[in-house]
Amino acid sequence: MAKQTLSGNMLIAQSGGPTAVINQSLVGAVLEAKKQKQIKKIYGALHGIKGILEEDLIDLGREGVRTLEDVAQTPSSALGSVRKKPTPADCAAIFEVLRKYDVRYFFYIGGNDSAETTHIINEEARKAKYDFRCYHICKTIDNDLRENDHTPGFGSGARFVASAFMGDNLDNRALPGVKINVVMGRHAGFLTAASALARVYPDDGPHLIYLPERAFDMNRFLRDVKRVYSKHGRCVVAVSEGIADKKGTPIASLFIKETDSHGNVQLSGSGALGDLLAGEIRDKLGIARVRADTFGYLQRSFPGIVAPNDAKEAREVGRQAVKASVAKQASGSIAIVRRPGKKYMVTYKRVPLKNVAKETQHMPAKFINKAGNDVTQAFINYAAPIVGKLPKVGRLKGVRVKKIK
Amino acid sequence: MAKQTLSGNMLIAQSGGPTAVINQSLVGAVLEAKKQKQIKKIYGALHGIKGILEEDLIDLGREGVRTLEDVAQTPSSALGSVRKKPTPADCAAIFEVLRKYDVRYFFYIGGNDSAETTHIINEEARKAKYDFRCYHICKTIDNDLRENDHTPGFGSGARFVASAFMGDNLDNRALPGVKINVVMGRHAGFLTAASALARVYPDDGPHLIYLPERAFDMNRFLRDVKRVYSKHGRCVVAVSEGIADKKGTPIASLFIKETDSHGNVQLSGSGALGDLLAGEIRDKLGIARVRADTFGYLQRSFPGIVAPNDAKEAREVGRQAVKASVAKQASGSIAIVRRPGKKYMVTYKRVPLKNVAKETQHMPAKFINKAGNDVTQAFINYAAPIVGKLPKVGRLKGVRVKKIK
Repeated sequence: MAKQTLSGNMLIAQSGGPTAVINQSLVGAVLEAKKQKQIKKIYGALHGIKGILEEDLIDLGREGVRTLEDVAQTPSSALGSVRKKPTPADCAAIFEVLRKYDVRYFFYIGGNDSAETTHIINEEARKAKYDFRCYHICKTIDNDLRENDHTPGFGSGARFVASAFMGDNLDNRALPGVKINVVMGRHAGFLTAASALARVYPDDGPHLIYLPERAFDMNRFLRDVKRVYSKHGRCVVAVSEGIADKKGTPIASLFIKETDSHGNVQLSGSGALGDLLAGEIRDKLGIARVRADTFGYLQRSFPGIVAPNDAKEAREVGRQAVKASVAKQASGSIAIVRRPGKKYMVTYKRVPLKNVAKETQHMPAKFINKAGNDVTQAFINYAAPIVGKLPKVGRLKGVRVKKIK
Repeated sequence: MAKQTLSGNMLIAQSGGPTAVINQSLVGAVLEAKKQKQIKKIYGALHGIKGILEEDLIDLGREGVRTLEDVAQTPSSALGSVRKKPTPADCAAIFEVLRKYDVRYFFYIGGNDSAETTHIINEEARKAKYDFRCYHICKTIDNDLRENDHTPGFGSGARFVASAFMGDNLDNRALPGVKINVVMGRHAGFLTAASALARVYPDDGPHLIYLPERAFDMNRFLRDVKRVYSKHGRCVVAVSEGIADKKGTPIASLFIKETDSHGNVQLSGSGALGDLLAGEIRDKLGIARVRADTFGYLQRSFPGIVAPNDAKEAREVGRQAVKASVAKQASGSIAIVRRPGKKYMVTYKRVPLKNVAKETQHMPAKFINKAGNDVTQAFINYAAPIVGKLPKVGRLKGVRVKKIK
């Protein structure tokens, strides 16, 4: 694993869905690289491997610290992004570009698909005996990367979701009815589960939470809603866009067909799932005021809604990747590890690329209640420090005036 | 108009759609009322006139200042809301309750429908010779109340919309395609127009803005999108939920049937309009990556996204209404008037209830461009101080690396 000192240029790129803090990782890596003598030029490829293949590069060494710090605070991939799985032919072409530009330090910021891309490039490089350092820098609002306690981007996405539910619960309390909010997360329910952090008072919503980790049953769902509505006169529901029936067929996939080159069904950007569920409640339970919202892309790139720990950790994984690469470690991904104990503390460790590539992790069973319609206190304890302190909401004491006969 | 000093209890309630600052008005009124000797008990009716009819009242005099200040910072109607137009029989019943509880100061916080309700109650009271002070306190994210330069709630709603577009424009820049965002505003396009404040760089979206004040033509829309997409390789579109064809038929009404008791078609909470427009672009222009989000209820009750001037002014209209009522003015609504000049300053004036009731105002022609697909600089100048300074977004200088042959 340990090799001789390697001198040459660096190339960094961003891939997959943006997050609110993905540029913290970029800037963390660039600022660290500027300190390292072995790293000469710092190139950024525009739109991930597409920019490498097309030699569409910018000189990140010419960006001032102030610009970089402004970019770090700005949501969504500053270098542009792409969703593209490279073919073996693409990989050959990528090496040609890396060789031509003497790139010896390669960093790819992204989720599990991007880790897979990085892993493929690294494997192909090994076969081609191309000597370079190849790193994946993790990000994903889905929080589904293996080896990681949680991933950069999740905290801020979860903060948006929790804040949105706080407000929407108050909205629903003011104008009672059933409200369904559809949250991102194709296979992992972490982001949907984060809605639970919105609860302040015992009667606060979300009253029901449906995750892709549990089979969705329409009749059970209707019974749940009916029970909550009878009790509170209202019901706020959090639903993952990826909920599926017991055969594993996504409920939303009955409506939306589009898939990307990784074979993922495109579930966001449509109100179909929410409308379907709202319609069922209206028809079967006879409740008049039923509304559905789909949070959509706002969850991953809303400016100003950033979890403080998320920003800090996103910066750090970028920095740590560069440090590991110059410390003669050939390849890897920087994972966030939580230290045991009451106080929230994390450390960073380098893990093999194959350990984070492709496969994702789901919500562990201990985070989901038995009925499969809520999260547990263990999840709240896990997520709270990642999301940070939420806005304070006040409630009137509400002393009732005695009715005059 | 001027009358003798009137001594008795006060009743306040909230009605219509919530806003992020509607409780500022409530708290402004309550804290002012606590100072006024003529005002004895301060009652809050739960869920607007529904709470009056059912004598569902709370004693706001027993709320501490700290609770009230926490509530002021909290989005969505703390007293609960309702959408209900009172019948003459309801009005008779309301007077009975007001008499029974010796209510001589009545305040109703809401939009044009709530102003109409207040106006009806006041007219019926006059006929019944019931001596009281009857005030409407304005709020609406739609910004469509007559007599007002702008309305409390709009600034914060617009701030959410502008922030959302800032992030979504960056998202679309990272992963190019066509993105449509559907914004609230049944008849007035102010909130949709506020998306224009998201622009920082010349190529920033929203690139096209469609308002209910201009007839929507599908073919012109497709031509517009095609032109922008050819130029920028991407296109971000802001569309009001209320866009209608030249006959005045809302495009969304072809899909959603539900109406409230004021006869308003329920347009929010569904992705149908966005999906329809996205489908047309996919089918007719052959663009593959087309997405649509409907912002929905988040726009009116997102905690922590508050325009500073909006919070201040919402507090002040509540306070001013109470001050006017004890200053022996029988009835009215407090309107926000902007003082001419470069520096942003507002004053408050009492206007007759009928002047703000029922009818709404639309975007003036000077705020809409000739093509009907964007706003003008005059609108930007109008809206910027209301929305306040938005989050800073950074962009890389992006010096291109010379391609190696």
